[in-house]
Amino acid sequence: MTAKNAFYAQSGGVTAVINASACGVIETARQHPDKIANVYAGRNGIIGALTEDLIDTSQESEDAIAALRYTPSGAFGSCRYKLKSLEANKREYERLIEVFKAHDIGYFFYNGGGDSADTCFKVSQLSETMGFPVQAIHVPKTVDNDLPITDNCPGFGSVAKYIATSALEASFDVRSMAKTSTKIFVLEVMGRHAGWIAAAGGLIEDHGMPVAVLFPEIEFDQDRFLAKVKAMVDAHDFCTIVVSEGAKYPDGRFLAEQGTRDAFGHAQLGGAAPVVANLVKEALGYKFHWAVADYLQRAARHLASKTDVEQAYATGRAAVELALTGENAIMPTIDRVSSDPYQWQVGKAPLSEVANVEKFMPREFITDDGFGITAACKSYLLPLIQGEDYPPFENGLPRFVTLKNTAVEKRLDAFEL
Amino acid sequence: MTAKNAFYAQSGGVTAVINASACGVIETARQHPDKIANVYAGRNGIIGALTEDLIDTSQESEDAIAALRYTPSGAFGSCRYKLKSLEANKREYERLIEVFKAHDIGYFFYNGGGDSADTCFKVSQLSETMGFPVQAIHVPKTVDNDLPITDNCPGFGSVAKYIATSALEASFDVRSMAKTSTKIFVLEVMGRHAGWIAAAGGLIEDHGMPVAVLFPEIEFDQDRFLAKVKAMVDAHDFCTIVVSEGAKYPDGRFLAEQGTRDAFGHAQLGGAAPVVANLVKEALGYKFHWAVADYLQRAARHLASKTDVEQAYATGRAAVELALTGENAIMPTIDRVSSDPYQWQVGKAPLSEVANVEKFMPREFITDDGFGITAACKSYLLPLIQGEDYPPFENGLPRFVTLKNTAVEKRLDAFEL
Repeated sequence: MTAKNAFYAQSGGVTAVINASACGVIETARQHPDKIANVYAGRNGIIGALTEDLIDTSQESEDAIAALRYTPSGAFGSCRYKLKSLEANKREYERLIEVFKAHDIGYFFYNGGGDSADTCFKVSQLSETMGFPVQAIHVPKTVDNDLPITDNCPGFGSVAKYIATSALEASFDVRSMAKTSTKIFVLEVMGRHAGWIAAAGGLIEDHGMPVAVLFPEIEFDQDRFLAKVKAMVDAHDFCTIVVSEGAKYPDGRFLAEQGTRDAFGHAQLGGAAPVVANLVKEALGYKFHWAVADYLQRAARHLASKTDVEQAYATGRAAVELALTGENAIMPTIDRVSSDPYQWQVGKAPLSEVANVEKFMPREFITDDGFGITAACKSYLLPLIQGEDYPPFENGLPRFVTLKNTAVEKRLDAFEL
Repeated sequence: MTAKNAFYAQSGGVTAVINASACGVIETARQHPDKIANVYAGRNGIIGALTEDLIDTSQESEDAIAALRYTPSGAFGSCRYKLKSLEANKREYERLIEVFKAHDIGYFFYNGGGDSADTCFKVSQLSETMGFPVQAIHVPKTVDNDLPITDNCPGFGSVAKYIATSALEASFDVRSMAKTSTKIFVLEVMGRHAGWIAAAGGLIEDHGMPVAVLFPEIEFDQDRFLAKVKAMVDAHDFCTIVVSEGAKYPDGRFLAEQGTRDAFGHAQLGGAAPVVANLVKEALGYKFHWAVADYLQRAARHLASKTDVEQAYATGRAAVELALTGENAIMPTIDRVSSDPYQWQVGKAPLSEVANVEKFMPREFITDDGFGITAACKSYLLPLIQGEDYPPFENGLPRFVTLKNTAVEKRLDAFEL
């Protein structure tokens, strides 16, 4: 068997550790030059494959590739672009085959979440549907932690560690201020559909901090929420509220959608945190502060979970190893062997069962009152935030790598997306 | 000379390192039992002195006091409470003397910013104005970095490091997403009057990131700002915007004040970041993300600047040492000896020249176009963010200390604020 080239690309929202998976893929591929000649990265995800915009990773030094392990973001660019079905857009699939043939690509590694798994699954079917042999392996990645089958998703542990640490630090702060000033602190976190990230905020309860969590999975009940906040402030003189961007009213509207207009009548985009803060202020009169972490949380490589970094690397490495054993249409998973002590191993799941399936917080992970996390949830979460893995700092700031990203010479005509 | 007790309290907004100053005060005082019998901390700042709500720090172990060095927030509680003038409220000054006498307090250490320096200055005048001998030393603290005379303020370096790191990480993120999704990232930072914190965001320019900074010191010129953003996106396909909460329109209105109303006609509190993001979206059509760091930035002990921690500790220690040499009505300062290599020493400034004076960004620290920082500003800022000083982590989260805060027995009648 002659060596084939591999295609690797990053898709969807990037994370603090998706580049650690890239590092795992490329370093492992380089150990098998007899089977994988070169790794071509897609510039901006699948778009790079469609437009033949390929990056020659062999031009990057060993040191540069190693530095991906501690560099947040997607080093080759990501995209939000989902392949349509074969029936709806056969032209795109024909183009992929054309590009794969032109560059002798036999392996397709796609690094992303649920939507991206769908793209990867469609590519994995090319041998069957279009008669072109390519092995497609999905590398899991999502801060939302909502992929099925795998116990958790690379990217999530680091966000969870960041949110729990930040909520803890801010709770110390507001506790100091509560006597004459701020009594409530509201932190808005990511997770439009699933409350995994918000749940991490609930961990600070065991550090003595009164906290209420607003999950997307639980309908927002304003009266019960205000009663909860009042009870916490009565008991502690302060409290912290962690609200998911996906928290919703019973009628399905997001808390963030207030239908507000600016002075010119334009719709005003807000955020759930200021809405919740103002609600409490109006009902209970407490002075508040609020923060919206947004990209800071998913880019915060400076506070990555060591466990998360190791799992991101391991799934990248496993993807290549699985491909070399002839697998197709699968995703390496993280399988939990035990929680205490935490032990895990890499398993695998068929993409047909992964694509487009979302995993929500189980109800038994949320306390009966809907505002906290249970012991079961804590023993699920805590292993995922274990360990620190600081990037190197230079002159006061992290020393991240920006790759050369040298383009592979094009051999085909241009393609309009 | 018999030993007297010392009073120590924390005032105003807390920081990631104000407890490092507390640590410096208490550890140093403990080394001089012949002169300082005990350190009584005010619960919630000067309010603790007025209400005789004193904390007996001798009840705290050496380890607990040492742990203050890496614990953010104000361990004894802070307050926003400014003493009126002697003429306006003589009753408060009489009460302070009553409390100081009852607890044999001869030293007054107040840890805060400009307003707090005013309170400390008033206390320092008690021997002259009211015939009661007490030495009052102010320990500088403010994330806003706006105290005069001192080269910089403890608390600022850590926020600057956090903001520069976070802006850098988020810039890597948005750069990855720009092809098909987010092109601009807006980060709102603290600093209502002075743009020091916003300036730190400008440091990422030297890491290859296109960035515009909106300072409170520079009137917001919408057309020039939009032209700047467009030029950056044309050149790089993305950009980052760091906006101070204090950024203002030419008519003096804050950007954050949009006069928006919710569905019930209530005034809506926003934030400068969403305003700027929406402005760019409407004018230029770029997809955006925005974050408001709020308390996260000033509580982020997990990413403190080592230089800042050392200076916070050193000014606390110096306050005690200055008191023991008989000083009154002064503040230890950080004096820069050289920038490269960075060398500093502790000096002192009279409180009469510190109280109520704000230090703004000098115009020569801001680029001509008003959207960036100059080389002079960079060489001012960079030394202050040098070095990392991670707190210990346990089970995935920082191990901060919560003191026992045992109350000193009251000897006086209650006092109404």
